[in-house]
Amino acid sequence: MTPPLPALEPVAFLLGTWRGGGRGDYPTIDPFDYTEEISFTHVGKPFLVYHQRTWGAGGDPLHTEMGYVRPVSPERAELVIAQPTGITEIHEGVVDGDTVRFTTVGVGRAPTAKDVRAVARTLSVSDDTLNYRLDMEAVGQGLQFHLEATLTRVP
Amino acid sequence: MTPPLPALEPVAFLLGTWRGGGRGDYPTIDPFDYTEEISFTHVGKPFLVYHQRTWGAGGDPLHTEMGYVRPVSPERAELVIAQPTGITEIHEGVVDGDTVRFTTVGVGRAPTAKDVRAVARTLSVSDDTLNYRLDMEAVGQGLQFHLEATLTRVP
Repeated sequence: MTPPLPALEPVAFLLGTWRGGGRGDYPTIDPFDYTEEISFTHVGKPFLVYHQRTWGAGGDPLHTEMGYVRPVSPERAELVIAQPTGITEIHEGVVDGDTVRFTTVGVGRAPTAKDVRAVARTLSVSDDTLNYRLDMEAVGQGLQFHLEATLTRVP
Repeated sequence: MTPPLPALEPVAFLLGTWRGGGRGDYPTIDPFDYTEEISFTHVGKPFLVYHQRTWGAGGDPLHTEMGYVRPVSPERAELVIAQPTGITEIHEGVVDGDTVRFTTVGVGRAPTAKDVRAVARTLSVSDDTLNYRLDMEAVGQGLQFHLEATLTRVP
């Protein structure tokens, strides 16, 4: 395997496969728990490849998404995501140690997609644990908590 | 493997892994040839998962992108794509037999991404051959030819 390019160093703490559980809530839905697996990999180029899947309590597939993390300086990174819900997200992020805080600079909506307006995603790694929190402004509701999860690195 | 949902029928002709060669050109670059592999898979939900990779003449990785195809009626489908160049595309498509013509309803650009404004993608399958053509409006140039490829189904 090609080693990660030096340009990836600011976001290299994300590299790996992570698995665990999370919980979701929003004013328009009932609270729910989920299982999740995400991975950040690299292909010898100056970006990370991101894949994500979640499953409900009964093992049924819930959400999935994928995208890329683009470090642009030691303290900044961009994130682009596509979702089968017909949503795309473009984020600008600030890297602070092993934490990165992304906020949307643009959300794309396919004609039949839900009205998602803005998303904020904070990912933080400590030892072999990745925590994230996702806030969302959508369907007429202000930016607020939607998802959080605690994932453990898969050896 | 779960069979594809009936809702996927309009775009089921895309399902599979496809490999072959293409050529690219644009007023701002030199013409180039590439090798490509794309796949359309499903996970038992009403969308296709799209992955794409290309390599240059020397085997070096060139472009990659991924996204989802969302059939919304027997004659219409949406396509969302994320690219490590910091670009996202949201398309609306018209399905006509084993051909689908996508045009962008929105292009997202990360702050440091190139100025891509619009993209049109036509994919057509005949027997075990997938042809596509991609036109692009970018970096001050009008919508015009950028890529075309002929791919063969990988058994």
